Amino acid sequence: MTIARVAIIGLGLLGGSIGLAVKARAPHIATTGWDRDVSVRERASARGLVGTVCDTPEGAVADADLVILCVPVGAMGDAARAIAPGLAPDAIISDVGSSKAAVADALAAALPGACIIPAHPVAGTEQSGPEAGFATLFAGRWCILTPPEGADPAAVAALSDFWTQLGSKVELMDAAHHDLVLAVTSHIPHLIAYTIVGTASDLEDVTQSEVIKYSAGGFRDFTRIAASDPVMWRDVFLTNKGAVLEMLGRFTEDLTALQRAIRSGDGDTLFDLFTRTRAIRRAVIEQGQDDERPDFGREHGQ
Amino acid sequence: MTIARVAIIGLGLLGGSIGLAVKARAPHIATTGWDRDVSVRERASARGLVGTVCDTPEGAVADADLVILCVPVGAMGDAARAIAPGLAPDAIISDVGSSKAAVADALAAALPGACIIPAHPVAGTEQSGPEAGFATLFAGRWCILTPPEGADPAAVAALSDFWTQLGSKVELMDAAHHDLVLAVTSHIPHLIAYTIVGTASDLEDVTQSEVIKYSAGGFRDFTRIAASDPVMWRDVFLTNKGAVLEMLGRFTEDLTALQRAIRSGDGDTLFDLFTRTRAIRRAVIEQGQDDERPDFGREHGQ
Repeated sequence: MTIARVAIIGLGLLGGSIGLAVKARAPHIATTGWDRDVSVRERASARGLVGTVCDTPEGAVADADLVILCVPVGAMGDAARAIAPGLAPDAIISDVGSSKAAVADALAAALPGACIIPAHPVAGTEQSGPEAGFATLFAGRWCILTPPEGADPAAVAALSDFWTQLGSKVELMDAAHHDLVLAVTSHIPHLIAYTIVGTASDLEDVTQSEVIKYSAGGFRDFTRIAASDPVMWRDVFLTNKGAVLEMLGRFTEDLTALQRAIRSGDGDTLFDLFTRTRAIRRAVIEQGQDDERPDFGREHGQ
Repeated sequence: MTIARVAIIGLGLLGGSIGLAVKARAPHIATTGWDRDVSVRERASARGLVGTVCDTPEGAVADADLVILCVPVGAMGDAARAIAPGLAPDAIISDVGSSKAAVADALAAALPGACIIPAHPVAGTEQSGPEAGFATLFAGRWCILTPPEGADPAAVAALSDFWTQLGSKVELMDAAHHDLVLAVTSHIPHLIAYTIVGTASDLEDVTQSEVIKYSAGGFRDFTRIAASDPVMWRDVFLTNKGAVLEMLGRFTEDLTALQRAIRSGDGDTLFDLFTRTRAIRRAVIEQGQDDERPDFGREHGQ
């Protein structure tokens, strides 16, 4: 099974980056694209995110071997219904959504009988829209495929090969396990960042201006994450509710224990945790998942 | 009041950066330094962090117009007692601690009658030790002075001038208000980051290896903060207990409200918060407190 033509539905950060990565690293693959927002289509066309920006979803997917839905997870069902009339019968349907069990259900309901292989490239930035994408977004990052039971192995192999060509490392995983893992490594961190930024901007005794001025003490890193796309993240929390609430429960238990340690002046408990967490950081860097330069290599003025 | 000679007690990230910044931006000021760890003294000397690394604390502070204690906040009292025998009678004693009311008390108790002007440069990285410092750490960052009531205005002006020469913007603040503001912009973010990294490394159903592999979804930013110096941060939480617990209470209330919104499928509440937090990010960047390049300008492979 050879992928010669890819249709990208949704031309924001992820869709645009896929288009640019194909152009840079797999130029033998033709790309088409569509976005429901006409302004996004125009800007995508101006940046050359895909070979051809089409006016209709059916037009974009015609003759595509692989269709990738790059829309918020809550919009997957609608996007799938919009492309249905134009799909080639043996096309692989995939996506880039951050929650997988709910997306698999939505796609299966919208496209009964289609070859559906959900996927999640674990990569992104806080920026969104057709101006945000870049060709190296996926380089060295993991892409998790969650093929449903009974999925065609040739289709899984073709999709895996596609992501490998874009520079990703590919892993297969059960959708439910994916949702639990990503609840920890992505969803809860985002929820916490959104919360603390909200809390900080809402105090009476500390002004918003003070919060911004003194943000270099740690807070500014949370503001980056809390600048992520609101629709995308609303949908993630609504579609991965079970795993998010379970992991939030664990986090809250641990936070309560630390709160108690602070209240009782138990420095050893604090020190032990603060020492243990350093090892995780080292492993993240050793495995190439972050920049080892201090402070993310931020520039430090003159 | 002219500062011609500065003594730096503690030659880690902060102390070393002060020494290097003086050398780069105010080379007319002589610097001496001391660290209680002989290996740190040797490495500081090899890197040339200060003009002279002394063998004793009294020796380091002899003839200094300004002494800056760059040790964990829980060690301020001991450091102050160690330098006491060598202090010039009119020397200004300052520090770089992240909590201020407790430090002011500790210094006043250890050095009765001395001219004490506590300070907090809101700058740092996750790295520590004498290899970690660099000359531009303070450039464009705020330095908060918390002079006690009745402090000598000439000493405050001299210290303010010193930090301005290192590239900082200086603000005066009441120590108690400082502790509340920094609880929000620095202490709680660190506590949360330490907690989630701890939680994630301690799960049964998600392995540590999975947490590390898929950390690019947001978690890795928390690992950076959670790699900060354990002794320094233990002491911050123990010495700023009241403000930290108060702010933690606000955070937990807000997190509980979001948890309820997720459980009940209330997408509007999530969307409203996620939209509001973007404005704070914009302000942080506009005011030069963070890098506007996406993803902190991280490099994205090839």
